[in-house]
Amino acid sequence: MTQNTIDERIASSKTSIFKVVFPNTTNHYNTLFGGTAMHMMDEVAFITGTRFCRKSIVTISSSQIDFNKPIPADSIVELIGEVVEIGNTSMKVKVQVFRENMFDDMRDKCIEGLFTFVSVDENKKPVKIID
Amino acid sequence: MTQNTIDERIASSKTSIFKVVFPNTTNHYNTLFGGTAMHMMDEVAFITGTRFCRKSIVTISSSQIDFNKPIPADSIVELIGEVVEIGNTSMKVKVQVFRENMFDDMRDKCIEGLFTFVSVDENKKPVKIID
Amino acid sequence: MTQNTIDERIASSKTSIFKVVFPNTTNHYNTLFGGTAMHMMDEVAFITGTRFCRKSIVTISSSQIDFNKPIPADSIVELIGEVVEIGNTSMKVKVQVFRENMFDDMRDKCIEGLFTFVSVDENKKPVKIID
Amino acid sequence: MTQNTIDERIASSKTSIFKVVFPNTTNHYNTLFGGTAMHMMDEVAFITGTRFCRKSIVTISSSQIDFNKPIPADSIVELIGEVVEIGNTSMKVKVQVFRENMFDDMRDKCIEGLFTFVSVDENKKPVKIID
Amino acid sequence: MTQNTIDERIASSKTSIFKVVFPNTTNHYNTLFGGTAMHMMDEVAFITGTRFCRKSIVTISSSQIDFNKPIPADSIVELIGEVVEIGNTSMKVKVQVFRENMFDDMRDKCIEGLFTFVSVDENKKPVKIID
Amino acid sequence: MTQNTIDERIASSKTSIFKVVFPNTTNHYNTLFGGTAMHMMDEVAFITGTRFCRKSIVTISSSQIDFNKPIPADSIVELIGEVVEIGNTSMKVKVQVFRENMFDDMRDKCIEGLFTFVSVDENKKPVKIID
Repeated sequence: MTQNTIDERIASSKTSIFKVVFPNTTNHYNTLFGGTAMHMMDEVAFITGTRFCRKSIVTISSSQIDFNKPIPADSIVELIGEVVEIGNTSMKVKVQVFRENMFDDMRDKCIEGLFTFVSVDENKKPVKIID
Repeated sequence: MTQNTIDERIASSKTSIFKVVFPNTTNHYNTLFGGTAMHMMDEVAFITGTRFCRKSIVTISSSQIDFNKPIPADSIVELIGEVVEIGNTSMKVKVQVFRENMFDDMRDKCIEGLFTFVSVDENKKPVKIID
Repeated sequence: MTQNTIDERIASSKTSIFKVVFPNTTNHYNTLFGGTAMHMMDEVAFITGTRFCRKSIVTISSSQIDFNKPIPADSIVELIGEVVEIGNTSMKVKVQVFRENMFDDMRDKCIEGLFTFVSVDENKKPVKIID
Repeated sequence: MTQNTIDERIASSKTSIFKVVFPNTTNHYNTLFGGTAMHMMDEVAFITGTRFCRKSIVTISSSQIDFNKPIPADSIVELIGEVVEIGNTSMKVKVQVFRENMFDDMRDKCIEGLFTFVSVDENKKPVKIID
Repeated sequence: MTQNTIDERIASSKTSIFKVVFPNTTNHYNTLFGGTAMHMMDEVAFITGTRFCRKSIVTISSSQIDFNKPIPADSIVELIGEVVEIGNTSMKVKVQVFRENMFDDMRDKCIEGLFTFVSVDENKKPVKIID
Repeated sequence: MTQNTIDERIASSKTSIFKVVFPNTTNHYNTLFGGTAMHMMDEVAFITGTRFCRKSIVTISSSQIDFNKPIPADSIVELIGEVVEIGNTSMKVKVQVFRENMFDDMRDKCIEGLFTFVSVDENKKPVKIID
């Protein structure tokens, strides 16, 4: 695969998920649970990685993740996944989380994390990300 | 608001949600339940409409929706919402659903629907979509 | 199958689902999401249709659905499905949604929709609704 | 309230819920979890009791419940709740669970249980079931 | 199996689950639904029983369960399951539910129930709990 | 607070959650999703931290987490949270995840992570973990 084709696959596998933060996913401080955010981040990373290589993949590592900007209930969040590094049988997907207020145009980035995946065959053996 | 501003808001409020179709959301025919698809379509339409006008909105109508191309488990779907008509206190959001195979590059459009929303104030009175 | 038998099957396949509308299924206007209602309507229609023909069925179309009477949190809703039209390999199921206040005897009809299903065999080929 | 009125309220508060037993609610033996059945039984009992007295009620007791007939995945179940005893501040609701095969006309009763509720005011004090 | 080994298995299969009672699992009285508690109790009993005998088991009976101490939202509950009786092909698991306030050290027992399980083979025939 | 009291609180706030890994929480490789594991780990860490300080807390950071031992469907997992470091307004909770086979006595540790929390008052200002 040429670098051009890889760049095209990276662009076309960029994946976005919008969600409303409902009160039933928030803690007493009325902000999104860290674990809920991590769950959504792995989900978008998984879809991004699958769409890049079109193979079975499994998460083998998540980076340190900081939650310095709390996301209050009644925010809208957008999670964006993008492949940023391609190894032999593994790849890294960066996930950025943006929050928007529901009722005005405020938008800023609040979380970022890296997820590492390996691609595997039916016998659970690692296989090449790119054939 | 000028038509330019409106066009910009339409573009920036375009909203995408990717999901994996897991076996536990499918029927005996092993395809996505119509009701599950409708639920997701209303969700993306709601976020699109909210992001366009940044006001409280409620669904008042969904168009006829045809499900002629079944979506099997282990597909990835993308739902894209876009504002297509703006009235005084209501607007229409078109939702298109695309499906992709998980393990090859097939992608096609399989469902389309229109959702109509009105914007309301705290006293549940309709208010202008655009001030 | 005689018309009598068909009428009996229509009567015995009439299907009812009661649900409490909890606050976590409602929007900012504090009323049931349209998408949640559509999901429940397809579910009761699916059970109704399956109980009528006792075959594998898939939704192929939902009619336009109007949500002119909002359903607030702390309502009880009843969804009633009934087969209203029988074709060769397809049938139509009408779904009516009634809401009741939890704490007084008010009850009225608030939504109505039509869902069309086809019956299919294991090879995903349409088969006769009635043998 | 006359006995007639009470009998009418018992009849009109009789409540039915149909559900499909999907594989993701079943155990290794591929039958419905007891706890899932109990959850649904309390839900239908709660709606039945609320519809009878139109007051806030809380479960204070469930009877012994036997699960001698396993309910396999791909059954349709109907839960029927009915008020069977009315005390001063409490009442008993009987719940019967019937199962049907999805693809033939078999239907039989498989579970039965009694749920006791008290009605309470905003200060959590028991109040009369019938004024 | 000696009584010693059995006692050790009973001790090592004792199973604990902590949960936060969130507002979306509570009724109007703002306390945990009885049915939600029963669901969680069967779940911890099922894990306890499985960990004791390491076989496929199914719930065949739950005892009468009393809910005399309501569990308000924003409690933390601990469910503890323990095998208390071992028959030939069945066993009884006692489940105790403790509640704690989130923001002070109050803790007391609020619910107790008995769940009976049988162990079964792939052909759904009862098999010995202990070989 | 003396070191003794702190040690006692650490011991009594140690928190355990058992879960069955059902097929509907696993990927194509039939192992638990990384994101699902992270969600459960944050949950047990949150309960552990709350039970230690009995104050409102929010996750501000998760450490790198490695998933080198996949957890297949039909495992039982135990998550154990324990406070391991106490700062002025923050604390670290270590979470260990053990997996057991359902049908034999195999048990080993498969994931470990650190979650950092701060305690906050109603005005969202950090407050002392220990008064």
